[in-house]
Amino acid sequence: MSDMKISPFAPDSFPKLPPIDGFDMATAEAGVKYDGRTDLWVLRGRSGTQVAGVFTKNRCPGAPVDWSRAALNAEAENAPRLVIVNSGTANVFGGQKSRDAVVETAQGAADIFGGAPEAVFLASTGVIGEPLEASKLTTKFPEIAAEMDADGWEAAARAIMTTDTHPKGATRAAYIGQTKVQINGIVKGSGMIAPDMATMLGYIATDANIAAPVLQSLLSDLTETSFNSITVDSDTSTSDTVMLLASCAADHAQITKTSDPRLADFRAKLNEVMLDLALQVVKDGEGASKFITIRVEGAQDNTSAKRIGLAIANSPLVKTAIAGEDANWGRIVMAVGKSGEPAERDLLSIWMGPHLLAEKGQKSEAYTEEAGAGYMKNAEIDIKVDLGIASGVAMVYTCDLTHAYIDINADYRS
Amino acid sequence: MSDMKISPFAPDSFPKLPPIDGFDMATAEAGVKYDGRTDLWVLRGRSGTQVAGVFTKNRCPGAPVDWSRAALNAEAENAPRLVIVNSGTANVFGGQKSRDAVVETAQGAADIFGGAPEAVFLASTGVIGEPLEASKLTTKFPEIAAEMDADGWEAAARAIMTTDTHPKGATRAAYIGQTKVQINGIVKGSGMIAPDMATMLGYIATDANIAAPVLQSLLSDLTETSFNSITVDSDTSTSDTVMLLASCAADHAQITKTSDPRLADFRAKLNEVMLDLALQVVKDGEGASKFITIRVEGAQDNTSAKRIGLAIANSPLVKTAIAGEDANWGRIVMAVGKSGEPAERDLLSIWMGPHLLAEKGQKSEAYTEEAGAGYMKNAEIDIKVDLGIASGVAMVYTCDLTHAYIDINADYRS
Repeated sequence: MSDMKISPFAPDSFPKLPPIDGFDMATAEAGVKYDGRTDLWVLRGRSGTQVAGVFTKNRCPGAPVDWSRAALNAEAENAPRLVIVNSGTANVFGGQKSRDAVVETAQGAADIFGGAPEAVFLASTGVIGEPLEASKLTTKFPEIAAEMDADGWEAAARAIMTTDTHPKGATRAAYIGQTKVQINGIVKGSGMIAPDMATMLGYIATDANIAAPVLQSLLSDLTETSFNSITVDSDTSTSDTVMLLASCAADHAQITKTSDPRLADFRAKLNEVMLDLALQVVKDGEGASKFITIRVEGAQDNTSAKRIGLAIANSPLVKTAIAGEDANWGRIVMAVGKSGEPAERDLLSIWMGPHLLAEKGQKSEAYTEEAGAGYMKNAEIDIKVDLGIASGVAMVYTCDLTHAYIDINADYRS
Repeated sequence: MSDMKISPFAPDSFPKLPPIDGFDMATAEAGVKYDGRTDLWVLRGRSGTQVAGVFTKNRCPGAPVDWSRAALNAEAENAPRLVIVNSGTANVFGGQKSRDAVVETAQGAADIFGGAPEAVFLASTGVIGEPLEASKLTTKFPEIAAEMDADGWEAAARAIMTTDTHPKGATRAAYIGQTKVQINGIVKGSGMIAPDMATMLGYIATDANIAAPVLQSLLSDLTETSFNSITVDSDTSTSDTVMLLASCAADHAQITKTSDPRLADFRAKLNEVMLDLALQVVKDGEGASKFITIRVEGAQDNTSAKRIGLAIANSPLVKTAIAGEDANWGRIVMAVGKSGEPAERDLLSIWMGPHLLAEKGQKSEAYTEEAGAGYMKNAEIDIKVDLGIASGVAMVYTCDLTHAYIDINADYRS
């Protein structure tokens, strides 16, 4: 996609992600589909690494997702843990060939990098319906093994891109008791070309000494308010994966309970990393020209608030209005109503940034179209909806729907 | 919208809708918003007219919807029944002003055309957030009263358009016993420009002698497989209304039970009228260049089949692929999976027209990209999905997502 414009929200440079004790990695050009770029990443966590993962809820998941879900429960206490990611094909809906490719890749990886095949985590992203040729990966493993290094997060973020317009990473330090630990994360997603599918892959690593069940609880909880609170086009990928790996190399007593008070800072910083990565995905959403934050307040409960937020975020009419810099609050009313969640038309209030547009079932007296039109020229748009019926709150993040989205998904064919 | 292209699916001419015994009507230029065109329609059914209606499920409905829902239950046996429809404003979310406008319009209509105000059916379609000035309608009622005539269905279909690219009507004759009755229907919907909302209004009239509860049962049942099986952009309007009125002028004994065997032909012809109208709405969908029929078979049950069909029909990735004439069956797999309905990846089969693209969890051996590419050049695309798990079936109808959709909803502001 040489003519793909870089997202207007791309950072000036990739953040500096320091090495994390207990992890090494390398990338390679395996030639799965793309020429002249890396498309294969291997991450290895030392023996004892604890792992948590969340996977797509799509009912037709890819073979790598099935495999990785099972690998979460594999016995792998005294061996390294491996993550193998390729871009260029999603290895989804390739039938027995897809399933064979998964086995061959995991076996090949375990042979070279150590560990048990059934405990290897796999992910593939790219075209759907084309099985992966595992040999393209496995023949590269010896070369990768020779280059494994603790540094390399930016290279990893680049290798897992499909049509993302830039690599995406985030890092934070956190304290567990007196011990400083590091949290690194990378993510890919939302840039794509026909016939690819939107897929989101996120990998977060830390040296913190935290047991897998606690990691899983943290990851599942924080996914709800980060990766599961973003939407580009309402289409749920068959490959979505977010994993959290802890090498446990840090020098503090292991955390084995989610109630451990030492988790507070780590949880906060992990949340920052996950939200940072999730928002980078939306901001690099297909054709995005506006980044939209939707805050829903006063709903029946938080779940209801989130459903309303997603109904607004996924409405093509809301998204095209914002692309057109039109403060079209009527479409927000429509989206609230279509969500099916409890709502009272005459209690509803709607803000765009500082401007109260509508309240008590009608246009706000003080609101002027000029004020709204001026605000809508901003690249980042904040929508607030107050249902006025209870205290449920949620935040949802999305982007607008532009001609470039159509270009990316209809006009190109790779 | 002088530069709005006529839908490529528009019929050469409006069908001939004959007068129906027991109904008269007229239209006028009330100047609600548009200049130089009609925007007000009054339909009157003779005393004894039986009425059924289905209304939007949107939780923030317009004041006219609230009013009309109540009017369905009003006592009005010995008086004419009135339908008053204006285009140009939806009279939604206009607070007390909207509610006052509804009362004033209904009262004004009853004064001039007869009947009780609380039994008048109202609908408004157009801009949201602008209350209707009822006086614009009521001052036109005397002029309309002087012109009431049994003919005029095409004029009616034109008066209720917003940015539809052509008026839409359908008609059938049916036999009830030996008595021939007529069924006429008109509908508006799906063409629109910012800041309007998609609204669909449909009105069907017949001289058949059928009691209101039977009409309501027929209308509700057949709406599920016609108007409730179409989607342009997944956004549910605050004003959607479909009404079925029977003047009971036909010379046969009244039908008072849905089990009456004399209903068979009427039900079949009513279904044809409703499906005809519903498909005209989709074919005039915003920016539509392709008309898409989705048949889902082998699902858990019919409800599940319909949900899967709607997930496919509402997927921006499926819709843009078809706009790009890309037989991208991978996106159909994704949409089936994201619906959350029971599905087995490895039992799924997908056809585009006569071409079997995918089966048993992978690309069909016999399928070639060339065959698929050739088929996708058609203006009408048939997708068939067989889940292979049970016998649930549904049909869903939609259109593609094109640059013109973005133009209509983002680039224009009227």
